[in-house]
Amino acid sequence: MGYRAPVGDMRFALEACADLWSLKHQFADIDADLLEAILDGAGALAADTLAPINRAGDRSGVSLEGDVVVAARGFKQAYAAFAEAGWQGLAADPAYGGQGLPRAVALAVFETIHSANMSFGLLPMLTLGAIEAIERHGAPDQKEFYLAKLISGEWTGTMNLTEPQAGSDLGALVTKATPQADGSYAITGQKIFITWGEHDLAANIVHLVLARIDGAPMGSKGISMFIVPKFRDEDGSRNAVRCIGIEEKMGIHASPTCTMAYEGATGWLIGEENKGLAAMFTMMNAARLNVGLQGVAVAEAAYQKAFAYAQERKQGGALIIEHPDVRRMLTHMRAKIQAGRAICYATAVAADSGDKQREDLLTPIAKAWCTELGVEAASLGVQVHGGMGYVEEGGAAQFYRDARIAPIYEGTNGIQAIDLYGRKLLGDRGEAMRALIDDAREAGAALKKTHGARLVIAADALEEATQYMLSAAREDALAGAFEYLMLAGDIAGGLYLARGLAGAPRHAAMTKEIIAGQTALFAYYAEAVLARAPARVTAIQIGAAALPPI
Amino acid sequence: MGYRAPVGDMRFALEACADLWSLKHQFADIDADLLEAILDGAGALAADTLAPINRAGDRSGVSLEGDVVVAARGFKQAYAAFAEAGWQGLAADPAYGGQGLPRAVALAVFETIHSANMSFGLLPMLTLGAIEAIERHGAPDQKEFYLAKLISGEWTGTMNLTEPQAGSDLGALVTKATPQADGSYAITGQKIFITWGEHDLAANIVHLVLARIDGAPMGSKGISMFIVPKFRDEDGSRNAVRCIGIEEKMGIHASPTCTMAYEGATGWLIGEENKGLAAMFTMMNAARLNVGLQGVAVAEAAYQKAFAYAQERKQGGALIIEHPDVRRMLTHMRAKIQAGRAICYATAVAADSGDKQREDLLTPIAKAWCTELGVEAASLGVQVHGGMGYVEEGGAAQFYRDARIAPIYEGTNGIQAIDLYGRKLLGDRGEAMRALIDDAREAGAALKKTHGARLVIAADALEEATQYMLSAAREDALAGAFEYLMLAGDIAGGLYLARGLAGAPRHAAMTKEIIAGQTALFAYYAEAVLARAPARVTAIQIGAAALPPI
Repeated sequence: MGYRAPVGDMRFALEACADLWSLKHQFADIDADLLEAILDGAGALAADTLAPINRAGDRSGVSLEGDVVVAARGFKQAYAAFAEAGWQGLAADPAYGGQGLPRAVALAVFETIHSANMSFGLLPMLTLGAIEAIERHGAPDQKEFYLAKLISGEWTGTMNLTEPQAGSDLGALVTKATPQADGSYAITGQKIFITWGEHDLAANIVHLVLARIDGAPMGSKGISMFIVPKFRDEDGSRNAVRCIGIEEKMGIHASPTCTMAYEGATGWLIGEENKGLAAMFTMMNAARLNVGLQGVAVAEAAYQKAFAYAQERKQGGALIIEHPDVRRMLTHMRAKIQAGRAICYATAVAADSGDKQREDLLTPIAKAWCTELGVEAASLGVQVHGGMGYVEEGGAAQFYRDARIAPIYEGTNGIQAIDLYGRKLLGDRGEAMRALIDDAREAGAALKKTHGARLVIAADALEEATQYMLSAAREDALAGAFEYLMLAGDIAGGLYLARGLAGAPRHAAMTKEIIAGQTALFAYYAEAVLARAPARVTAIQIGAAALPPI
Repeated sequence: MGYRAPVGDMRFALEACADLWSLKHQFADIDADLLEAILDGAGALAADTLAPINRAGDRSGVSLEGDVVVAARGFKQAYAAFAEAGWQGLAADPAYGGQGLPRAVALAVFETIHSANMSFGLLPMLTLGAIEAIERHGAPDQKEFYLAKLISGEWTGTMNLTEPQAGSDLGALVTKATPQADGSYAITGQKIFITWGEHDLAANIVHLVLARIDGAPMGSKGISMFIVPKFRDEDGSRNAVRCIGIEEKMGIHASPTCTMAYEGATGWLIGEENKGLAAMFTMMNAARLNVGLQGVAVAEAAYQKAFAYAQERKQGGALIIEHPDVRRMLTHMRAKIQAGRAICYATAVAADSGDKQREDLLTPIAKAWCTELGVEAASLGVQVHGGMGYVEEGGAAQFYRDARIAPIYEGTNGIQAIDLYGRKLLGDRGEAMRALIDDAREAGAALKKTHGARLVIAADALEEATQYMLSAAREDALAGAFEYLMLAGDIAGGLYLARGLAGAPRHAAMTKEIIAGQTALFAYYAEAVLARAPARVTAIQIGAAALPPI
């Protein structure tokens, strides 16, 4: 059996855990029927069109012929089907052809796409980033020119940040932008790790490129953002940007990772001069949530494959799912997946509702906690398969390889931990985190069962860790920042799962059977994940001196 | 910088943690000078001959041409160098050309081989298994005929257990053995997942094959073990066993994983009729320790590569090793590697000294805990590299792919957990485990520092968990068995690290600098690993009812 969208779990996470319908007054067009239709439609695309080409795309990868990237077989047709159905513009501005639905709903749609085919999903995910950047920072004529084409899926978008010498340190980038007489800029430099930087699936590619205008200050305060289309706006002529290499990666083989050479390419400033980094960060915040979601999605795909295998594979006269340890692995996967899904959807609902404090706090948690989950679940998925998991034919191995990129790109999880500590926690002296802790305590107390008490105790541990992080010297706090983020993710997951249980009876779609299943998942999560919280504070408090540069 | 044998860490683990010199009276030939010469020699082979062909072997893999497996480039010369230097027979019986050294020393040698080239290491590892099986179960003429050739490395060995329909359930195997007039058996059947089942590196391959003699009882009590040489003993003619397929795997690409077809092949019974499973288990016990060691070895290789990268890669004007979170990852890797190394070496010293109780207890722990470590450390190694970790060219990705097999083969880690619970814990009603717990408490108390106290408290948690495992219903115990094994591994690692610190001053080679470094590793291990022990008991006690077959 191939991938099927877990619509029951998705709706529970979206409606009960993340409280989607709290957005009702903002998004009058959507109701339960439309949501169901959207999830069913996206699930069908994922199951029938995207999942079937996932393994072949992994095997063949993409090829670079001259400066043309040829996509894996079936991807062109799949992308055409995706674009034609209007999936790209679900949450985009109706003024430019979007459907103006909540981002949370679009996120759920993208979950099914990433589960079915993570390589494919990266293409519309990057386009989404370009759409959001132009929506927020573009001049009216730029919106007019680009948005409709991107929202319809006719064109795709990329983000061009990294340079060979700079890695995550964007302040060190040297790509230059030289002003031209017509108001454009000539962009010259090299960018690496550009996802879907070149391909043959769409008529044009809109590159959003960070570069330094001649004479701009050094460091991060001299960076501007430019739109560099593959084909020039004026006459459709080929712009001086091309792919000069593709990476040989461990996974996501069907997603071309390009080295892009800009050789005096025509670019247009978007947003203000020297404010490019800030513009890119707004774009990256959305992308970070989407990458977190990829972690959930690849975990779900790994879970479904492992579950199906465990149900049909016999060992010693019994199905392997009858072995308690196999059930432990499967339950662990599904419980943490549901927690991660709830975190991601809740982040999107916070964004939709304008709860910027919660959105900002949850974004690095969603990115890092959920992508660690992706790796953990994909590894367990291999393990459930035994020897067949290690053989590529089995399919579980691909998830393990694909999942490993997500903790790295869009800011490594170490960078997410610095973000959570430096910008989010110190930024408001812990106010947003304390609100989350209070919510977790309340949600735990509302369950009035042993398992709810686990959440309350875990929230106490998070509070203790938070006080430490706020009072510790910077280096000491940074030494514990990753563990702190992971603890915060555990509690955030518990909070939204618990809220889901409390809120579920209000939703017509939540049958008793569904609620019983989710109750069991929360019980496992409480005993196997939340119960560990108190003892984890020690590792957070370890201090920089305990990490000698040995 | 390529791989270098971590001789300092290895000697600390071997001499101080595992108390190698307690074997002095049994193995009079070895002293500190010889040990140093052996480790230096093995380290040189690993660094200069095996590591340089590791990545090319990963890229090219092996090929099956007709029924001939052609090894990756350089492997033939490397194997010749390995055999010629006498590494295969380090711990083997001197009567047949072995050197009769402690197995613990041979284990340390194999660590460097696996670190440098895990695919290569599997070949002598499997041969070692064949040597041990024939040493223990072979008739005098079988020993005479096979052992010298295997010990010299002129021939290699394999283990043939798994069949397509049976997986880990050996009782279900159907390969049959039909008695022949000359006292031999005609072996007919198919075996899968046979590591180095066919290759062109040695003059002959000695297959140890499980099969069912015509008329033997069904199930596991009707299984016998046979020697089936690739070239027949009598006349050197080609035997009717051949490789009919090789697996396309996620990693260890240079190690051929063969499907072997036996078509009336000439085989000779080894050991008693219908006692093949017991014979195979004695062989597997040694193999399990060796697989655990592979986990340590691949973790060490991943650590060294990540450490070198962190020391040379700049980010934001600073080397990335200056980031506390990068140091956390590196320290985490090295501390757990040293714990795993100490566990493996201590298991071998227990075997050498005839302390069967400790050897049997530690074997499943060494296998499972250390192979989980291999995956964890290889994943962290990728993470330290950032984007370069995901690109195959960087080399970190290979360790992540290679490491993933070790939790699966030689009995999945779930099976190790069942072994620890069913055979080891129930087998003596917890006596061996209580001895380990007492040792841990004593070692912790002897350190008389905060960090020692962490070990004492962790040992208390293991005792609580042990009492639960002994009193729980079988299904409930099995539901917690994997987590229990992992907890036991944490405490075993702490015990041997602590013993190392206490014992180090007695050893001339342990300089103050070395001891200071090891003290820092133990401190990290205590705060980041052992401190979590108490809260993990809850997950062990979760019970089968919490793991519904959802």
